[in-house]
Amino acid sequence: MSMTKACRKIGVNYCHGTTKINLWCPNANKVAVLKPKDETIIHLEKADFGYWQKTTDLLQPGDEYFMLLDDKTLPDPTALQQPDIHQASKVANLHAFEWTDEHWQIPAMQDFIIYELHVGTFTPEGTFEAIIQKLDDLLELGINAIELMPVAQFPGNRNWGYDGVFPFAVQNSYGAYTGLQELVNACHEKGIAVILDVVYNHLGPEGNYLNDFGPFFTDKYQTPWGKAINFDDADCDAVRTLYIENVLLWLRDFHIDGLRLDAVHAIKDFSAKHILAEIKEHVDAFNQEHQKTHFLIAECDLNDRRYLEPLSQNGFAMDAQWIDEFHHALRVSAGGEKNGYYEDFSGISSLAKAYQDAFVFDGLYSPHRKKKFGSSAAGLAGERFVVFSQNHDQVGNRMLGERSSQLFSFEMQKLMAAAVFISPYIPMLFMGEEWSASSPFQYFISHTDEELIKAVQEGRKKEFAAFVSEEEVPDPQAISTFEASKLRWDELNLPQYKTMLAYYKALIQLRKTHPVFKSTQRKGLKAYADETRQMLY
Amino acid sequence: MSMTKACRKIGVNYCHGTTKINLWCPNANKVAVLKPKDETIIHLEKADFGYWQKTTDLLQPGDEYFMLLDDKTLPDPTALQQPDIHQASKVANLHAFEWTDEHWQIPAMQDFIIYELHVGTFTPEGTFEAIIQKLDDLLELGINAIELMPVAQFPGNRNWGYDGVFPFAVQNSYGAYTGLQELVNACHEKGIAVILDVVYNHLGPEGNYLNDFGPFFTDKYQTPWGKAINFDDADCDAVRTLYIENVLLWLRDFHIDGLRLDAVHAIKDFSAKHILAEIKEHVDAFNQEHQKTHFLIAECDLNDRRYLEPLSQNGFAMDAQWIDEFHHALRVSAGGEKNGYYEDFSGISSLAKAYQDAFVFDGLYSPHRKKKFGSSAAGLAGERFVVFSQNHDQVGNRMLGERSSQLFSFEMQKLMAAAVFISPYIPMLFMGEEWSASSPFQYFISHTDEELIKAVQEGRKKEFAAFVSEEEVPDPQAISTFEASKLRWDELNLPQYKTMLAYYKALIQLRKTHPVFKSTQRKGLKAYADETRQMLY
Repeated sequence: MSMTKACRKIGVNYCHGTTKINLWCPNANKVAVLKPKDETIIHLEKADFGYWQKTTDLLQPGDEYFMLLDDKTLPDPTALQQPDIHQASKVANLHAFEWTDEHWQIPAMQDFIIYELHVGTFTPEGTFEAIIQKLDDLLELGINAIELMPVAQFPGNRNWGYDGVFPFAVQNSYGAYTGLQELVNACHEKGIAVILDVVYNHLGPEGNYLNDFGPFFTDKYQTPWGKAINFDDADCDAVRTLYIENVLLWLRDFHIDGLRLDAVHAIKDFSAKHILAEIKEHVDAFNQEHQKTHFLIAECDLNDRRYLEPLSQNGFAMDAQWIDEFHHALRVSAGGEKNGYYEDFSGISSLAKAYQDAFVFDGLYSPHRKKKFGSSAAGLAGERFVVFSQNHDQVGNRMLGERSSQLFSFEMQKLMAAAVFISPYIPMLFMGEEWSASSPFQYFISHTDEELIKAVQEGRKKEFAAFVSEEEVPDPQAISTFEASKLRWDELNLPQYKTMLAYYKALIQLRKTHPVFKSTQRKGLKAYADETRQMLY
Repeated sequence: MSMTKACRKIGVNYCHGTTKINLWCPNANKVAVLKPKDETIIHLEKADFGYWQKTTDLLQPGDEYFMLLDDKTLPDPTALQQPDIHQASKVANLHAFEWTDEHWQIPAMQDFIIYELHVGTFTPEGTFEAIIQKLDDLLELGINAIELMPVAQFPGNRNWGYDGVFPFAVQNSYGAYTGLQELVNACHEKGIAVILDVVYNHLGPEGNYLNDFGPFFTDKYQTPWGKAINFDDADCDAVRTLYIENVLLWLRDFHIDGLRLDAVHAIKDFSAKHILAEIKEHVDAFNQEHQKTHFLIAECDLNDRRYLEPLSQNGFAMDAQWIDEFHHALRVSAGGEKNGYYEDFSGISSLAKAYQDAFVFDGLYSPHRKKKFGSSAAGLAGERFVVFSQNHDQVGNRMLGERSSQLFSFEMQKLMAAAVFISPYIPMLFMGEEWSASSPFQYFISHTDEELIKAVQEGRKKEFAAFVSEEEVPDPQAISTFEASKLRWDELNLPQYKTMLAYYKALIQLRKTHPVFKSTQRKGLKAYADETRQMLY
């Protein structure tokens, strides 16, 4: 534990031997902290800009507490520990962990081979600790980064992570904050980077207490998940600060190497300084101070090069972004279905365009979107884009959550994997893909609100009502849906899975060593599609 | 009439001797044009992207017509003539006018001295023709550009212009399209440029038939006037094309020199190419082709330098923008009230900041907005900003529409005028200001929808309910409110008005000839405020 370590600036922070409280409650007349154990009440003092503060020794690591806002008793939405989303928060000691990764160096962007995983279903145990046991397998596979689906505390024990409601609390059933620190440290010791998926565009539908504290949302914009988070309306400064502090928490106190920012197109901000640009400025300053190269990868459905361009050119300077279009073109090329958003993709000619231009829609008319869409990605290097033949969304958003293993022939799966690894972009795998795992990755939740559970179940059924299928939509709330989605590691004893794994290992080895496949240079790259012969060269 | 002149690409266009129809009706099954005079029906043919087309000789200039969409009979929202917003549209011949302004050159931005006027109240007649009679007075005053408040057809004969609902039809009571062509030609012959205020962020509440034709609005964003215009949702391409064609109409067929784009902060567009950038590209291309320097001035309440930065740097490349903050700082410095948005301005120290940095809020916390606001305008030349001590909004949005003449002493008015003319920014006057005109500029409408009239009347009363005043809120619908807002030119026979006019003439002369006052160089400019002595230097 280093005494020079910076402390989180908001929330309840035990840091350097004392506890500092700084909570944003702009509309409250009286704010206090209640320790339920002995009913101690710690009154906070009003500070500028709607914050309430106190330095105290009455709150120690492990202590449970509630917030008292006037006459409301609430959990602290900025808590670092929140074992039950509706119950008491808990004080953490982020600095107790003994890091042993001093010599860890973050790889250069162009060298990344990313492995996306969901903590709850990656292993039978569904914990950070259990992941550590698998790191040697991953090393042997050849990847050099794991990307964790969101770990912010969500309702219950089963969730993809996008229903998180406590942005600073690490999911207790995964192993809470100490578990994540252990995992990152272990990864770094083995030479594996850790990317964390964070959700800054919405909050989950159950247990979201943030709006009780201040105007956390604005009705200026609508998102697919309702009101937008308030990044540019009155009182937005505290909301922006909260997310900036969240970014810094992961880098500083968890040694996370890079963040994957979920659906940034749903972050609506017309400020002169967009929140993504402000986040980037803070990451740059942190990197400067610590001589590191922490990075930001955006999931962005806008095909807008501005997200990748420098801050000095009004860009948001994301280090990279996902290109779903590569996936869509690849899947249609492989003979996948052509409904929904796949209607925009013609197969190998779209794939050729993705190879050559990154964005398939770079100003072209998109029939699915019913408008001209996107800008040109010309001049942006290949390492600015992440590609994949599968990911949690593309698998899990299917009615039955089928992986490619259930949809495509063995040979086609191999071809699809190769298509990813020979691209000039950063390749990403979805856990289990490397052995053509048989388990699906289905949509699962574990809410406690009965009405919400029903609404999600109905919504899911409705979403797939058009599908003519003998099969039932799996019940998202059922434990069996979650259990079915777990990887079956014992499959690896069977020859067909072994073969695929060996193939992936060879592919990754080729990617890492062959000067042509290794390069993310896009200049001079040409891709041609021969539709008649279904050839791409 | 030149045979090489381009024709408008959408709507009903009599051009080069024939009439071409191209209307966007993506959801209609059958589209036709009906001539009410002889009940001729001209069936249109379905083309790509929801357009319906026909080339015909059955529609001639002056002919009245309706659109038939399936079983609905509607005016054409893209009509060039629309004498009554709920009745038949009329075919125009934009090319009949004999222009004599071949030798006209648009002045350089830094040389502009702009005179904002409202056609309906500038003269007793309230027409374009009557303005022509006043051009010599304006020339003598010294201004070199008039800026017309919006002229798109609105309900009735009395409106500021922001309730326009036919973006391509020039208000018939002002003199319709031929009247505007006459005015611009006359201005150019006398050496006066014409700037037109256009509203691309909303449509008026009465007579808006655009949404009957296609998804013209989106509920993704909320604006102060309801649903936002659809610039980035499904089917937005036709909406974007409509506004681009509108820009080109004014430049090409009316010889308008520059556009003032109303409230661009309410134009919500998350496309990779923002509609303002696309408009700018078209203006640039038009200028290139015609060797002209048409320009765009934005009204923007974001203090975001992106709006002024080059397209190559993800900017929107507006040639200039208004800075209301200069006005607010000036008014508070002059001893004006400090309620509402004025609370953000401290007087001369804010004014000093406006002189030196253009944006008073360049990232600072704004108590009124309750957030940090704006970006730095460093490096942007003075001619990128338009300043004023009065304008239609700052006068007319007051309960009684009082000008500075009713609020400040004669000497203070002189000081405020001088503050504008010695600034490194483009000065703008509001009509009548030059002689300290006594008539107010009040809020007036002439809707026909009784419920709407009541709603506007009530809204206006409510807006000012907090004001402790013996006086009544003027009735916006009353003719007397409109009449009271007309300039009283006979005032100019009285000595006090003559004195002010002479002062303005001298000031403008100084601005135009003195090398220091003429310059819009901001580099090296320093402004200091001495609060104790209330001095600015």
